[in-house]
Amino acid sequence: MDAAVRPTTGETTAQSNGALDANTLFAPIRPGLRLVEAKLRGVDSALFAPLADAFINLIGSGGKRLRPALALLTAELNGAMQGTPRYTAVIALGAAVEMLHTATLVHDDVIDGALLRRGAPTLNAQWSGIATVLAGNYLFGTAARFSAETQNMRVIELFSDTLRIIVDGELRQLKDRYDFVQKKDNYYQRIFAKTASLFCAATQGAAILARLPEDRIDDLYQFGYNFGMAFQIVDDILDFTSDDATLGKPAGSDLRQGTLTLPFFHFLQQHANAASVIETLEAAQLDADDGNAAAWEETVTTLVHALRASGAVEAAREEARMFLRRAADNLAPLPEGAFRHSLQGLCEFVVRRTY
Amino acid sequence: MDAAVRPTTGETTAQSNGALDANTLFAPIRPGLRLVEAKLRGVDSALFAPLADAFINLIGSGGKRLRPALALLTAELNGAMQGTPRYTAVIALGAAVEMLHTATLVHDDVIDGALLRRGAPTLNAQWSGIATVLAGNYLFGTAARFSAETQNMRVIELFSDTLRIIVDGELRQLKDRYDFVQKKDNYYQRIFAKTASLFCAATQGAAILARLPEDRIDDLYQFGYNFGMAFQIVDDILDFTSDDATLGKPAGSDLRQGTLTLPFFHFLQQHANAASVIETLEAAQLDADDGNAAAWEETVTTLVHALRASGAVEAAREEARMFLRRAADNLAPLPEGAFRHSLQGLCEFVVRRTY
Repeated sequence: MDAAVRPTTGETTAQSNGALDANTLFAPIRPGLRLVEAKLRGVDSALFAPLADAFINLIGSGGKRLRPALALLTAELNGAMQGTPRYTAVIALGAAVEMLHTATLVHDDVIDGALLRRGAPTLNAQWSGIATVLAGNYLFGTAARFSAETQNMRVIELFSDTLRIIVDGELRQLKDRYDFVQKKDNYYQRIFAKTASLFCAATQGAAILARLPEDRIDDLYQFGYNFGMAFQIVDDILDFTSDDATLGKPAGSDLRQGTLTLPFFHFLQQHANAASVIETLEAAQLDADDGNAAAWEETVTTLVHALRASGAVEAAREEARMFLRRAADNLAPLPEGAFRHSLQGLCEFVVRRTY
Repeated sequence: MDAAVRPTTGETTAQSNGALDANTLFAPIRPGLRLVEAKLRGVDSALFAPLADAFINLIGSGGKRLRPALALLTAELNGAMQGTPRYTAVIALGAAVEMLHTATLVHDDVIDGALLRRGAPTLNAQWSGIATVLAGNYLFGTAARFSAETQNMRVIELFSDTLRIIVDGELRQLKDRYDFVQKKDNYYQRIFAKTASLFCAATQGAAILARLPEDRIDDLYQFGYNFGMAFQIVDDILDFTSDDATLGKPAGSDLRQGTLTLPFFHFLQQHANAASVIETLEAAQLDADDGNAAAWEETVTTLVHALRASGAVEAAREEARMFLRRAADNLAPLPEGAFRHSLQGLCEFVVRRTY
């Protein structure tokens, strides 16, 4: 679901891209990312040992810290200097968004029953589902605490609203599962809620903490929105196009779980007989409900191959590019320099990433 | 687990106690409780219909709103006047603590697999466990939002810390289940975390919002602590002493689920051969693990009868009275009048309640 945060293993296209490597793009904010990291790893002290160990593993397996990076780049681009109170507040915001992201991943693990996340065994595999739910709750509490440390009422409110938006999106995703006649708008609502909203919280929150005027705060909200939408669309494309080994799960896993994503909507739109595709899926799903899981697997696999051979992937990719062009436009009024360069680079990084 | 918040059905001792009826004690803060109620019922608008309906049921089935009442009594006792900004902040605090309480009940339902809570079907029975987890998360987000509306940084931090304490307590409870040689201290830690901490958040938070000096804030924290500890001890006594019809579940359900409570610790302490009691329980539990659930049921039922016939219940009740005497002492420095009278009355109400 969130392939970009997996650690890379071996050679990848992105790593050989030099300037487009996330590590290079994050270079201007390395000190801030280290402070965020230290904050994230400081959460265990109050917990009893086995849970603390699990958290260290989970938080330590890390990923790219893309969300804190967006907050730091936005704030430093707009003059938040290291050592100042507003810089300290941005560190707290970065830790809050990453912790909220981690908390939702923990609960997603319960929901998906996924066995691996970020390459490390999920909490869910080691703990019962119930302890996992509670662990996620604990991380929510920690995220809320971090957001309070920004000492900025508007950011705190933004943050609690984002939590509600994310959860609302997850509930909608549950509700829409296996509904093959749902509107494409449902998809946009879902990916805003589950992904883009947190990117918005990072960039808009950082803009608020940097005391920018309202129109710049709005630009940076829009940047987070457009960047986040593109990010999730590319994620959803990769779920169809990557090979099983790269994904760590069979391709088409979203569709397999009944969740419709953008490439599927384009596939339907371009198909000569969309009604027959829907009928086939509905019939296979009914079969699966009757215990014939193999029929469902076969139908999905056939559809994944047909979709790959169609123009659906390219159409979805073009939408991602459109969101990224808008994101680049949102950056135009901001000061030039290393930080803006990195934000622009992240846009290119997202559309080119292949894992 | 939280018997006091169930709606009363038919005649009960407490209802016939006149002045000790919660409704009477809440009379001075009725307008505030109505505002809290309106805030709690306003949460549904952003949600899709089935979940909103479930929330209305859950939040509407209501209970006594003891936690918001503590916040309101504390604040009004200390001069927070209706219509002032600090009164508005206390309403937000009251809604926040009640919403946090409700969120933890929702997740407890997943944990306990309980079928009924507050007389209404639990979310869990109507929804899958996963939707229930998400619904609980949504309520956490709403609670965090309410706490932000207090516009008081210290209260916001107190609130997020309380969430973490509650979850930590639930995790400890899971860990301690079926550990029959655990220390009595584990029990006090658990009930502080899962119950008293939220009472503390209500009274201490209200004291902060009422701009009391630090030593009064501390008194009111202590009041919340002592009141909350007594409240949970009485709850745990009632789990042993009430008849099945009143509880809506078999007596001794905590022990049946492997959770040790104060009466059990006193039973062991007073028993001539505590080691044999522990051995019997451990053996029955091993049998249950091997599939012989009946043996475990029988062992628990026998133990419940033995415990009722022992001095354990009275010893536990004496501890509750001790906590309540301390709670009354914590109120001594505060201004006399209807609000303090109600807080004192609630202490008597707790120790006398029989449902």
